[in-house]
Amino acid sequence: MNFASDNAAGVAPAILDALRGADAGFALGYGDDTVTRRVEATFSRVFERDVAVYLVTTGTAANALPLAQLSPPWGAVLCHRDAHITTSEAGAPEFFGGGLKLVPLDGADGKLDPAGLEAAFDSAEWGGPHHVTPSVVSLAQVTEAGTVYRPQEIAALAAFAHGHGMALHMDGARFGNAVAALGVTPAEASWKGGVDVLSFGATKGGAMAAEAVVFFDKTRTAGMAERRKRSGHLVSKHRFVAAQFEAFLADGLWLDLARHANAMAARLGAGLAAAGVAPVWPVEANIVFALLPRAVHERLTGAGASYYVRHRAGLDSGDSVLVRLVTSFATAEAEVERFIALARG
Amino acid sequence: MNFASDNAAGVAPAILDALRGADAGFALGYGDDTVTRRVEATFSRVFERDVAVYLVTTGTAANALPLAQLSPPWGAVLCHRDAHITTSEAGAPEFFGGGLKLVPLDGADGKLDPAGLEAAFDSAEWGGPHHVTPSVVSLAQVTEAGTVYRPQEIAALAAFAHGHGMALHMDGARFGNAVAALGVTPAEASWKGGVDVLSFGATKGGAMAAEAVVFFDKTRTAGMAERRKRSGHLVSKHRFVAAQFEAFLADGLWLDLARHANAMAARLGAGLAAAGVAPVWPVEANIVFALLPRAVHERLTGAGASYYVRHRAGLDSGDSVLVRLVTSFATAEAEVERFIALARG
Amino acid sequence: MNFASDNAAGVAPAILDALRGADAGFALGYGDDTVTRRVEATFSRVFERDVAVYLVTTGTAANALPLAQLSPPWGAVLCHRDAHITTSEAGAPEFFGGGLKLVPLDGADGKLDPAGLEAAFDSAEWGGPHHVTPSVVSLAQVTEAGTVYRPQEIAALAAFAHGHGMALHMDGARFGNAVAALGVTPAEASWKGGVDVLSFGATKGGAMAAEAVVFFDKTRTAGMAERRKRSGHLVSKHRFVAAQFEAFLADGLWLDLARHANAMAARLGAGLAAAGVAPVWPVEANIVFALLPRAVHERLTGAGASYYVRHRAGLDSGDSVLVRLVTSFATAEAEVERFIALARG
Amino acid sequence: MNFASDNAAGVAPAILDALRGADAGFALGYGDDTVTRRVEATFSRVFERDVAVYLVTTGTAANALPLAQLSPPWGAVLCHRDAHITTSEAGAPEFFGGGLKLVPLDGADGKLDPAGLEAAFDSAEWGGPHHVTPSVVSLAQVTEAGTVYRPQEIAALAAFAHGHGMALHMDGARFGNAVAALGVTPAEASWKGGVDVLSFGATKGGAMAAEAVVFFDKTRTAGMAERRKRSGHLVSKHRFVAAQFEAFLADGLWLDLARHANAMAARLGAGLAAAGVAPVWPVEANIVFALLPRAVHERLTGAGASYYVRHRAGLDSGDSVLVRLVTSFATAEAEVERFIALARG
Repeated sequence: MNFASDNAAGVAPAILDALRGADAGFALGYGDDTVTRRVEATFSRVFERDVAVYLVTTGTAANALPLAQLSPPWGAVLCHRDAHITTSEAGAPEFFGGGLKLVPLDGADGKLDPAGLEAAFDSAEWGGPHHVTPSVVSLAQVTEAGTVYRPQEIAALAAFAHGHGMALHMDGARFGNAVAALGVTPAEASWKGGVDVLSFGATKGGAMAAEAVVFFDKTRTAGMAERRKRSGHLVSKHRFVAAQFEAFLADGLWLDLARHANAMAARLGAGLAAAGVAPVWPVEANIVFALLPRAVHERLTGAGASYYVRHRAGLDSGDSVLVRLVTSFATAEAEVERFIALARG
Repeated sequence: MNFASDNAAGVAPAILDALRGADAGFALGYGDDTVTRRVEATFSRVFERDVAVYLVTTGTAANALPLAQLSPPWGAVLCHRDAHITTSEAGAPEFFGGGLKLVPLDGADGKLDPAGLEAAFDSAEWGGPHHVTPSVVSLAQVTEAGTVYRPQEIAALAAFAHGHGMALHMDGARFGNAVAALGVTPAEASWKGGVDVLSFGATKGGAMAAEAVVFFDKTRTAGMAERRKRSGHLVSKHRFVAAQFEAFLADGLWLDLARHANAMAARLGAGLAAAGVAPVWPVEANIVFALLPRAVHERLTGAGASYYVRHRAGLDSGDSVLVRLVTSFATAEAEVERFIALARG
Repeated sequence: MNFASDNAAGVAPAILDALRGADAGFALGYGDDTVTRRVEATFSRVFERDVAVYLVTTGTAANALPLAQLSPPWGAVLCHRDAHITTSEAGAPEFFGGGLKLVPLDGADGKLDPAGLEAAFDSAEWGGPHHVTPSVVSLAQVTEAGTVYRPQEIAALAAFAHGHGMALHMDGARFGNAVAALGVTPAEASWKGGVDVLSFGATKGGAMAAEAVVFFDKTRTAGMAERRKRSGHLVSKHRFVAAQFEAFLADGLWLDLARHANAMAARLGAGLAAAGVAPVWPVEANIVFALLPRAVHERLTGAGASYYVRHRAGLDSGDSVLVRLVTSFATAEAEVERFIALARG
Repeated sequence: MNFASDNAAGVAPAILDALRGADAGFALGYGDDTVTRRVEATFSRVFERDVAVYLVTTGTAANALPLAQLSPPWGAVLCHRDAHITTSEAGAPEFFGGGLKLVPLDGADGKLDPAGLEAAFDSAEWGGPHHVTPSVVSLAQVTEAGTVYRPQEIAALAAFAHGHGMALHMDGARFGNAVAALGVTPAEASWKGGVDVLSFGATKGGAMAAEAVVFFDKTRTAGMAERRKRSGHLVSKHRFVAAQFEAFLADGLWLDLARHANAMAARLGAGLAAAGVAPVWPVEANIVFALLPRAVHERLTGAGASYYVRHRAGLDSGDSVLVRLVTSFATAEAEVERFIALARG
């Protein structure tokens, strides 16, 4: 019963196989290889557009690199107060970005909305030389609350961002879960709604260590190759990162894996609700937040369930525990059922 | 009727004279001169303690240097949402600090309070490797709202900061105004209440361009000389910065100047209140915030009054204008009276 | 006939197997897993000392992180003029180190020596506030010239470094090749000779993407976990990086692989010498530099040989081409022989 | 007999007077004042071109800001091995430039030359993603050796720089001394020869603390205002920095002051040569390097002469001392004569 994180899962078999498959003979390093060439073409096909792709091995790098690219050091990146980039990356965007500023905003269900952006603009002074320059709106898809932006929500944020001279960045660590949930094309889930750069994660979706920074506008990439190299994120045996993505994207594997994870979360959320523990936020992808009575929490952990406890003032208390449950491609239905049964008591 | 800022004033005559006085013969540069030696001794006398002093020419440098010194690049500096360091220094603390993070907090009357700090600690996860490390609490004395922390308020913030492994920094761009308002000693207004480092401004108080970073604990200064130099803030003809402070601190000039500025603000606030325009926040030093009816605002600016308009959602509106009025050592009583008369209509 | 780089090789079979082996069930991310725990213990055993280890996926990160840790932003890292850290990492040490300075030094056969360090000290002013502070001596083992420092050479550099308040860093991207060549223990090749921190590479030795920063003095690691995270180098499914090292270090595999690579280079060097093309620098590990007559160069590349051409003023010319030939665990004897035969003409 | 530095002098009387003159009434801060407007126009007049000017208070800032502006963080700034920016600014260019790299080059008489640049290009690999990108050639006028680039020398460096995609920066801390020495116009000494950005110092020339960054191409200044602010170099009572430059540039004062300093150095150099101590490098501006017999050195310092001793391997020895003698607007002829007499013995 491991619901700690989707990165607690292992690697999807097809991706492990692909590593072995990529291990044939010699290949130049640093991306000058045929696997990388192929996967770059695949990205363009998947997104129905000629894109520029930079592969790295961590989500933190996949987020921080484009933020540094899109914002000057005196820029501001507007994001949700709970966004991973501001809460859980130890200041990576600030480091990569030469001291840029993340501006945390409120928003229901873990989502930014135009009204919140408007209020941020309205409540402070912006722009040089004295004030930081708003440069990027960054949204996480899936959000940290487990919710999913609808295409029209993204489009509204994009309109605001672009209307105020800002770029729109999407932290897609769980982009696959979102696309699977929305039932739209990858293009519709990204650039067609106005996303300028997507940090497209494969690791949580089933890869070993593979994330892609996808620029939909190739004219914005000057310096990206240098940024990746000097931050230590240009992998030398690059074909093995590319191979992970190649398998991930082949035949819609990434969406199959995401659909399974989403289905497990839906089942878990429904089961908990039926057990009297309604999810705190809508279960729209592969994350369930629930407020467990303390006794239930203790029963579950006593039985070996693994998950993280969160704290939100005004939500949890001495009697109830706020828990985050994350499913993955590797989550077994039986484990979900066992968890629900234990929750039911 | 210039109430735009205390940095719109010129230079106090005694300080201008001191520049001329320092211009006698040759002196080694970069602080290896007798004026600098003397003023360093003066600082220790004024603060009743052996202090380490670093002189610079701007308040932004005076704030950013010690924040970078007290916080690692992965650290967090907790400050009020309206603090100058986070709203009006174009990301200087982030730049000097290698990408540190400023965490903006709410607090009544422009002040931080322990409950606000407590809530910040309670509502997020902190510490490495994933989360930034709380390193500094920074408070502005006088605050951006024109209010003044009482010694016991500072002591309470210091207790919280030190109890959580953080240092306490004071942005004293208007430290003189605060000390004059409180009627305590400089020591009581700073290290006796737990302040670790003070950015002590003279410019707004009447100097030309002179700010001092004062470390009360000299063991915390390793690297500060290098930081000042490599950020371009070690003035070569250093004696002329030192001479400004020497004159400023001589015979309590700084407090005399501050008392005048404070008295002008008090008079202005009382006059406006009598005219039916009550100050928005308590007038405790040399800043008055008032919500002027639009017609009054237009009458005043039409008559040549100079001041900045601010905006706060929920406070000002189409009918009323939020204005900030700052007095200085150079503010004439007659101008204050004229302003009040115009406000009265 | 691929001699382009040891990172053009694939992955040693045992290491690929280990990836599969690590893929059993769930495991907490970010290094909180049993494989990581085991490999940390293995490092301490291999080095006969309780060490602190930080795993990353690139050599650039493995170098830049400890340099940033050992040097303040106003520090200087002294290295050979041809060192990878200064020629081929796009400024990574400067980026990670907040703007530290690399000081390039001359030295025969790609090696630093105490006389060169002495001359550097003697020819410039050092130390704050005006001059950068010498903080680290960094040497590459194997060097970029393919030579290997002897233990007594390292000890002499360490004595100089420590005697001048500097730490000694070793860029061990090919540490295995050096240890195999020297026939000493890993401890003798590192901390017993005075190395403070070792960037120990496995990737070039046969892993997929695995490098270790090894601190021999655990008291110097404060902040390292934060540095790794905020630079995006804390891999989430960390067990798969750890597993590579576990297989690499098991039963001396790393040294077996290195010995093969070294033997291939020795054979290549001897064969070329016999063919009248003497190596430019002593062939001591897995790299051969040779000055090929242009016709030979064209014959070889025409036959499909892959390698990099270098340029050194005064060495190569219109008639001769300076080439770098790198062997690896995957280099086949037959390919070496074929290369020699072609060189012979 | 103070020849320690031109920043050991005080302030030219006209400039001190100008400070008092600027102290009339209120003026908006941060450069929104009439003195600043006037001096900006003056700069354009002096340089016969519409220029963009950023005033700061130190030479280190005046150099580091434009280097950061002209080079990306992964860029390289090529400069002479003895350039102030690389030897004496504690890493300021690296700090402001987000970790850019200074590449120290050799060159006779403290000067860069095209052959040296050519050799640098020829001896290393350049450009992304692996290698830093050559972005700026920076030359000091007057050089650290006290020599002066001729206009045609500058033009040749500019041709090389521009031909290789680099900008040409001039560190003009002693620009006035150079212009006075060359007898050309400021335009001829700068942009007409291809200089893109000039760091024009007034402090060493007789001001208190005033340096100007002059962009000859105004289209290259995007972000400069933000850079200045966030590095703490936007002085609030800005009119007092502007007033220094206004007086400095009025009626050719700067050139008069420089001519005096140069004349004193010429006299000193000639006198020492007549005394048997020939200057080490040509005395072309206001700096004399001489190799004093130790006994002479001791006699001079014993008599109260103040100057800095330098060290150059192969130049000075136990018997002779390399000294740097700097004259300024404040150097008295009698002191020069006294120094020469003492040197003569």
